[in-house]
Amino acid sequence: MVCAGRNESSRQIPYGTKDFLPQEAAGKRQLENILAELFRRWGYDEVITPTFEYLETLTAGSDPAATQTMFKFFDQNNSLVALRPDMTAPIARVAATRLKEVASPLRLFYLANVFRQEQTQTGRLCEFYQAGVELYGFAGAAADAEVVALAVEALSSAGLEKFQIGLGQVGFVNGLLQDAALPASFCRQIRHCLVTRNLVGLDETLAASGLDQARCEIIRAVPLLQGRQEVLNRAAKMVGDPASLAALENLAEIYRLLKSYGVEERIVFDLGLIRDFGYYTGLVFEGYAPGLGFPICGGGRYDGMLAAFGIDCPATGFALGMERIMLAMAKQGREFQAAPKELYVAWQEGWRDKATAEAAKRRRAGLTAELGHKPETRAEAEMSRQARGCRKLIYFGE
Amino acid sequence: MVCAGRNESSRQIPYGTKDFLPQEAAGKRQLENILAELFRRWGYDEVITPTFEYLETLTAGSDPAATQTMFKFFDQNNSLVALRPDMTAPIARVAATRLKEVASPLRLFYLANVFRQEQTQTGRLCEFYQAGVELYGFAGAAADAEVVALAVEALSSAGLEKFQIGLGQVGFVNGLLQDAALPASFCRQIRHCLVTRNLVGLDETLAASGLDQARCEIIRAVPLLQGRQEVLNRAAKMVGDPASLAALENLAEIYRLLKSYGVEERIVFDLGLIRDFGYYTGLVFEGYAPGLGFPICGGGRYDGMLAAFGIDCPATGFALGMERIMLAMAKQGREFQAAPKELYVAWQEGWRDKATAEAAKRRRAGLTAELGHKPETRAEAEMSRQARGCRKLIYFGE
Repeated sequence: MVCAGRNESSRQIPYGTKDFLPQEAAGKRQLENILAELFRRWGYDEVITPTFEYLETLTAGSDPAATQTMFKFFDQNNSLVALRPDMTAPIARVAATRLKEVASPLRLFYLANVFRQEQTQTGRLCEFYQAGVELYGFAGAAADAEVVALAVEALSSAGLEKFQIGLGQVGFVNGLLQDAALPASFCRQIRHCLVTRNLVGLDETLAASGLDQARCEIIRAVPLLQGRQEVLNRAAKMVGDPASLAALENLAEIYRLLKSYGVEERIVFDLGLIRDFGYYTGLVFEGYAPGLGFPICGGGRYDGMLAAFGIDCPATGFALGMERIMLAMAKQGREFQAAPKELYVAWQEGWRDKATAEAAKRRRAGLTAELGHKPETRAEAEMSRQARGCRKLIYFGE
Repeated sequence: MVCAGRNESSRQIPYGTKDFLPQEAAGKRQLENILAELFRRWGYDEVITPTFEYLETLTAGSDPAATQTMFKFFDQNNSLVALRPDMTAPIARVAATRLKEVASPLRLFYLANVFRQEQTQTGRLCEFYQAGVELYGFAGAAADAEVVALAVEALSSAGLEKFQIGLGQVGFVNGLLQDAALPASFCRQIRHCLVTRNLVGLDETLAASGLDQARCEIIRAVPLLQGRQEVLNRAAKMVGDPASLAALENLAEIYRLLKSYGVEERIVFDLGLIRDFGYYTGLVFEGYAPGLGFPICGGGRYDGMLAAFGIDCPATGFALGMERIMLAMAKQGREFQAAPKELYVAWQEGWRDKATAEAAKRRRAGLTAELGHKPETRAEAEMSRQARGCRKLIYFGE
């Protein structure tokens, strides 16, 4: 049935995109429904925003350099728009414009595709799916604990058994850099080395900076401040500046609250974690599953962003990478199993109407029933049933 | 809390787009789950395709003029791509490339957003949502009857009580025009008048065409051939050309099959219905709800399209307009009611941990539990419960 000489490019898809075939699409739908139901139970309401927005919306409150990786085009009115690279700015826009009369705190969730022009070696495609929550109007450690606990529940509910959440606080490194009083270019380099976990680069930058030995030691130790609760005590003994100490205090308070959610076993501290979004102002966190070279979720506190949309309001939240979670599930042997089709309803010539009515009846009773498309003998029908992956045959005929 | 002097345009959204706020987003999710479950029970499997595709994919097998209303841009490799204007071509591409080894017939469904640069007076936005099915590899009237019956079930399952499906057959008008042997430009004008239901224009075109009186009479009568089964007999007495008669025969056969599905009450015939997609080759149909000036679903047979993707394969299917169905539901008093939140869990100073643990327990039991974010007296907690729309208060304190 294949036609020769057709134009091949109409059969391809663009770089960094993918098709979800039935098995994978069913798994994604199941995961989305689990997460939507979980978020709802925690009091979060779903919001859906446009797939493209004005460039000014997408860059408000965040790094303008982010536009480099956006898919940009012109809308109906020749305004410059872009496919959304994440949901944080769009949800902040909705909260600031359409939901500002709603009683605070405001809890929102989304399940959405986002788009970035990146090389796909980064562990994600140019179009990928995120599930996430945003909690607005609630400034304390309790709000951060709530979203971290919800991220843990989300990963557990998805069926993941092995994962951890790493907690950091941008105030810790900010305090050290402020105390060091280095020129901005050195601060940028040090941050970049921390984000990329480049310890050699960090050593070289510190050596070139002329910073005193004691402070160099402390900053050099930051990427190693990883582990359970004792890390906070170790760090507190090393640093003296009030901003870094306040950040450690904040993490200790969040951890204490996480215990009342019963999720503390999932938590590790990682004081070198600062994430590469400029908008974070407090807690930052990432989720990891064994064998994956990239985080499966990320989030934190970003109290400055809503001001860009005209509302001064604290905010915290996270996003889960849907494809990454599905990959982690597969690695842990928790691959989604599609429900088998229950019935194949076949018929002999002259019995089609009876078979059609029977299939309709079974579907109304909640079963999956595929109807044969042509007259079949009982033996043919049995072969069709197998080929179509149905459990049981119902045959109409003599 | 509103900040003065912010840039207003970051707070707007592009022309023809919208936000779904919580109530509407919950209704859309519920409708999607109902439809996905229904399609699955009929033996259809979900497929998810990229939001943008090569322009060549989106125009393969259909009218190249359709590119005028597409949102076009360049991908990572500087290839011209566009946001998909409908799902028919993308699903055909998947079937022809990734699923061609699957046993025929192939049943696929989708729930997806599509994009068209149109004026929004047409009853839809520039980004809107469709749910649909495609049935490949099954050429008979039974396949058309299956998708029409499934469209009826979909609209019923959505909760619509009042709606009808209009059936037409492009072969009927094609036969008349072929028999009339008019120049192509007149044929185009006549088709355009039929699509737009422009009876005056139809009269004028026929008068200008110089077609004989008898044939003019027949074509002029086409838009009036609307009604129940007797329309087919009326039409059969009027026409003599074999293609038109075969089209009527096909409709009669589809109607007979629809009776075995028990959905014949929903069916009307409308022989002037030809739809404005060039790719239809047989049955065409549309769904209507009272008080809406546009169809809520549309579909038909398009046996030529898969050849454009290298596979010669018959095809039939439909798409439902999600927003239009939600609008029709609202007009019929079937607006979605969000499930109320069950619990508000509040606490006095010193009782937060107990309250947190209780909320976690209740959520695991499947209830919606919002946790208070600060210490409250019992009276304050009762006010918060009301403000947040929760049914019941659980209070921890002395």
